[in-house]
Amino acid sequence: MAVPPPTHPRRLLPLSLGLFQGALLLFFALFVTYDEPLAQAEDAKVVANQLYGIFPFFQDIQVMLVVGLGLLLTFLPRYGLSVLTHNFLLLNFSTQWALALQGLIHHFHHGQVHLDLRNLLTAEFAAVTVLISVGAVLGRTSPCQLLLVATCEVPVYLASEWAIVTHLGVLDVGGTITIHVFSCYFGLGVSKGLFGATQRPVHPKETPTPRSDLLSLVGTLILWVFWPSFVAVLCQPGDAQHRAILNTLLAMSASTVTTVVASSLLERDGKLSPSHLQNGSLAGGVAIGAVADMAMPPVAALALGSLSAVICVLGFRFLTPLLVRKLALQDQCGIHNLHGLPGILGAVASAVAILVASEDTSGQALCQAAGLAVAIGGSLLAGLLAGAALRLPCLARPPEQLSFDDLFWPQARDFRGI
Amino acid sequence: MAVPPPTHPRRLLPLSLGLFQGALLLFFALFVTYDEPLAQAEDAKVVANQLYGIFPFFQDIQVMLVVGLGLLLTFLPRYGLSVLTHNFLLLNFSTQWALALQGLIHHFHHGQVHLDLRNLLTAEFAAVTVLISVGAVLGRTSPCQLLLVATCEVPVYLASEWAIVTHLGVLDVGGTITIHVFSCYFGLGVSKGLFGATQRPVHPKETPTPRSDLLSLVGTLILWVFWPSFVAVLCQPGDAQHRAILNTLLAMSASTVTTVVASSLLERDGKLSPSHLQNGSLAGGVAIGAVADMAMPPVAALALGSLSAVICVLGFRFLTPLLVRKLALQDQCGIHNLHGLPGILGAVASAVAILVASEDTSGQALCQAAGLAVAIGGSLLAGLLAGAALRLPCLARPPEQLSFDDLFWPQARDFRGI
Amino acid sequence: MAVPPPTHPRRLLPLSLGLFQGALLLFFALFVTYDEPLAQAEDAKVVANQLYGIFPFFQDIQVMLVVGLGLLLTFLPRYGLSVLTHNFLLLNFSTQWALALQGLIHHFHHGQVHLDLRNLLTAEFAAVTVLISVGAVLGRTSPCQLLLVATCEVPVYLASEWAIVTHLGVLDVGGTITIHVFSCYFGLGVSKGLFGATQRPVHPKETPTPRSDLLSLVGTLILWVFWPSFVAVLCQPGDAQHRAILNTLLAMSASTVTTVVASSLLERDGKLSPSHLQNGSLAGGVAIGAVADMAMPPVAALALGSLSAVICVLGFRFLTPLLVRKLALQDQCGIHNLHGLPGILGAVASAVAILVASEDTSGQALCQAAGLAVAIGGSLLAGLLAGAALRLPCLARPPEQLSFDDLFWPQARDFRGI
Repeated sequence: MAVPPPTHPRRLLPLSLGLFQGALLLFFALFVTYDEPLAQAEDAKVVANQLYGIFPFFQDIQVMLVVGLGLLLTFLPRYGLSVLTHNFLLLNFSTQWALALQGLIHHFHHGQVHLDLRNLLTAEFAAVTVLISVGAVLGRTSPCQLLLVATCEVPVYLASEWAIVTHLGVLDVGGTITIHVFSCYFGLGVSKGLFGATQRPVHPKETPTPRSDLLSLVGTLILWVFWPSFVAVLCQPGDAQHRAILNTLLAMSASTVTTVVASSLLERDGKLSPSHLQNGSLAGGVAIGAVADMAMPPVAALALGSLSAVICVLGFRFLTPLLVRKLALQDQCGIHNLHGLPGILGAVASAVAILVASEDTSGQALCQAAGLAVAIGGSLLAGLLAGAALRLPCLARPPEQLSFDDLFWPQARDFRGI
Repeated sequence: MAVPPPTHPRRLLPLSLGLFQGALLLFFALFVTYDEPLAQAEDAKVVANQLYGIFPFFQDIQVMLVVGLGLLLTFLPRYGLSVLTHNFLLLNFSTQWALALQGLIHHFHHGQVHLDLRNLLTAEFAAVTVLISVGAVLGRTSPCQLLLVATCEVPVYLASEWAIVTHLGVLDVGGTITIHVFSCYFGLGVSKGLFGATQRPVHPKETPTPRSDLLSLVGTLILWVFWPSFVAVLCQPGDAQHRAILNTLLAMSASTVTTVVASSLLERDGKLSPSHLQNGSLAGGVAIGAVADMAMPPVAALALGSLSAVICVLGFRFLTPLLVRKLALQDQCGIHNLHGLPGILGAVASAVAILVASEDTSGQALCQAAGLAVAIGGSLLAGLLAGAALRLPCLARPPEQLSFDDLFWPQARDFRGI
Repeated sequence: MAVPPPTHPRRLLPLSLGLFQGALLLFFALFVTYDEPLAQAEDAKVVANQLYGIFPFFQDIQVMLVVGLGLLLTFLPRYGLSVLTHNFLLLNFSTQWALALQGLIHHFHHGQVHLDLRNLLTAEFAAVTVLISVGAVLGRTSPCQLLLVATCEVPVYLASEWAIVTHLGVLDVGGTITIHVFSCYFGLGVSKGLFGATQRPVHPKETPTPRSDLLSLVGTLILWVFWPSFVAVLCQPGDAQHRAILNTLLAMSASTVTTVVASSLLERDGKLSPSHLQNGSLAGGVAIGAVADMAMPPVAALALGSLSAVICVLGFRFLTPLLVRKLALQDQCGIHNLHGLPGILGAVASAVAILVASEDTSGQALCQAAGLAVAIGGSLLAGLLAGAALRLPCLARPPEQLSFDDLFWPQARDFRGI
């Protein structure tokens, strides 16, 4: 197989990344510190109990992002190593970048930045948006392009999260609006901005094999198991957190069963589509985030889970092909079906749940709608701009014939057999 | 490869499953609610602490059932996607079905059903029995048949568990009798009822490859790691729970070492059999369940672990071939060797441990024996009936030449190479 | 493929292992007991809270050792089953062996041995050293040889740990010196003692495939996620433990980004080397152990993580080939680059951190240096002796043409295609 020699400046990645790491070190040296140790033994016990309260949740989320999400994306059979590495690198880069930006903002208001596990967690949430967004352009982008996406998306996310949660007062404990909807439309914006109006034929290496689908399904299962921790970690401890966990479990269980129903009805001969199952069974977790801790009956969680699975499967079956045909919109991983549609459904559900709970809360319901609009509008616009920036020739987008191939890795050229 | 077109009514699966999901929604809407939020801040702290006590155990068990057990069953090289999906679907379906049945029983006694994490956990334990039982007929059954197994087994399990634990007062904190022995003989009954007296030659796709054995071994390792949480989750917090964890760890460690010894002695040239290791190293966890929290010396846990590994390996080597020859009994995953024999050993051990602890407890020891008899007898009978029901033609058992093949999935027809 | 018949006494493995298991049972029967149950309800609550404090950490570490480390070593494409099994067996054997030795020492001083989760954890730490050391000789050794390594290494580790921590008072909460440095040089000693001065050409089965590299990378990711639990489990609860977790997270995040930078700068065409990423991203976790709970600014953790990744990658690129050429030193997994170099860096960093913290602590800083010297010197010497013992013909080292092959397993002879 004759592979054309790489022509772009291969030094851009290490140099820019090394520069970033150096700048971060400098920033930490100047501005970041830990909390002062507490003198009292009683206080130490409180700190320990707080830590034991949050740390298992934090670890669950780490497993989701590093292992679960990484494996979910390995459905491209010759791109597994690349995708695991990109996901891992982007998570670390984006978390550090978010920590620095958060710290910078905090510094100008309050001086010294005190680092704790909760800061790290919110920085990691910023990184999640990047990991979701890049799913739209997976396989046809270079590492440099992906790092530029992260560089652009993290500050936009922080601004959007501030506008939606702090300024508008939107209730969204599980990140349905601020994380899922935002990152989906940012990613679609990037895809449109980068690829423009040209349609691409299906690439021969795009088709999953049973083996790559299996590994991807394992990723889904890991995400599915730990999702309740993601939704509940920032809830008020006690009843609200307990309810958030139960609602998420119910929603995701209903999603799984409903996905099988919907996929089996839509596919030829009643078979199941792997991509439906890989995504649909998680749709309930996306949708439940905005209402997870609200005082609503358990049936609402089940219904929301079922409904979100239905629209996710319908999205894969009908909307994605339509968007390709009409708008030439690339969405490699179907993030619109997993994060966009169920996210919007969850946002609408949160407005309805607030209205049902009490008559005089229509203001809050309007806020939820406004938050949704800000998330979609802001992210689409910013994503389009970021996508246009990705066209810079120095970022070295791989040529079409090298797409979906682990070329990032030296031995992958000799890759034989799947 | 000419695959005959599927001839059975492919709509049965989505329609029946959809109907079930709709009925469950209705039931939840009418009868199920969450606990009332507590008004006091002090109470909230208690709730939070209870949650932090149980939630990490719950997550460990979820990983075991969704990821660990799923992977363990992927030893059939062309059936990995199907087995992961079946396991995932059955877990969700059975948990919901058990929740509904539990709720229904509760409702007629006490009115409104209050859902919490503990209810969910006991419902999930009911689902575990289904996941174990279907191991006997893996690869030669359709999804519809598996769902019918779940539909039958969950109510029988609830009745059996009530009879054994509530009525007879059997001590069985880790489910040795109520879960492992019960589900094993239910599964063997199903296999006998379904396949009857016809012996089947070994199917060419039944033989594991090194790769499928590797994935299956990873499943074993995951189950092995989290097994202590499964045994200890419902123990009395404090010493009893601590002891249950330690006993499980010791038993499983002894199982692992002894499995290597036994397998190496029995195999040609001192080699190891993958299936021995995949199952034998877990046998200690099965056997320890009935005695895990009892006040017995640590050496008893080690001895029980060793002994259960020996009978598990002996079962694979001698009993399974014998059962095939004499009774034409299919047991695809060897559930009799992993759940049946070590479960019976554990039940006997619990009677012995009770007798040794004190003279005047022979009544309790008899109870343990009675519980074992109920578990075996009831499950075998119910399993045989359920197996006979599986012969209904509309359930679409795959023809022999399509067994052990991922036909459930569209692209699997083009599956090339393992 | 004509495989010569195995000529060595295949019964040695099961017989010696069975003898060991029997002796352990006897020892437990005579000397080991659990703590007495506490009578007071208040005490039970304390026990429960202590358990909930340590158990999630313990489970994380179990996942690391059984699943993460096992998968990391599967980079040899035809040796995956063997390596998972060896790792699993060695962990169990070494933990039991360490429990027995610890118990024996304790028994002669205090009588009856009381077993709890903390004893088990420290025994497991002894087992970790074995799992690391055998990485140097992976693929060219028989199970009997590996068990002999474990038999020798555990007592040497216990003595070395006593000398370094108890006698010298070295601060090393995360095991940088006592575990990582010790096990690395013990492993290199074993390799030298076993293989002597003969250089071996690269074996055709030594080269990873994209698939085996992918599985190995998943192992890295699992280790990466749970590493903070490994470092922090034995810290003082409260601030120190919180700080240890944060420092480890920062160090490992910096390691990951820096590994990409360094690997990309060193490899041809700016590509990444899988082995760099598999190891370099963990280097920060190795180095941070000795300083993780100290009161130092967060930037120190970041810098240490970056630096350790750089020396790990440099080690793979330049030092390992040099050691092969000059000393004929085999280091199959590159444990010197992951555990040796970053471990030494971490030890030096701990001395520096102590000196910087206060002027009058130069005694403690000297202790750290002395501890490092003891760890390197003692382990190298003991490793060389153990390696020489491995040359005993009855231990059945596989001949060169059968190295790196899953021959331990019966069906592996028919292994086709990777």
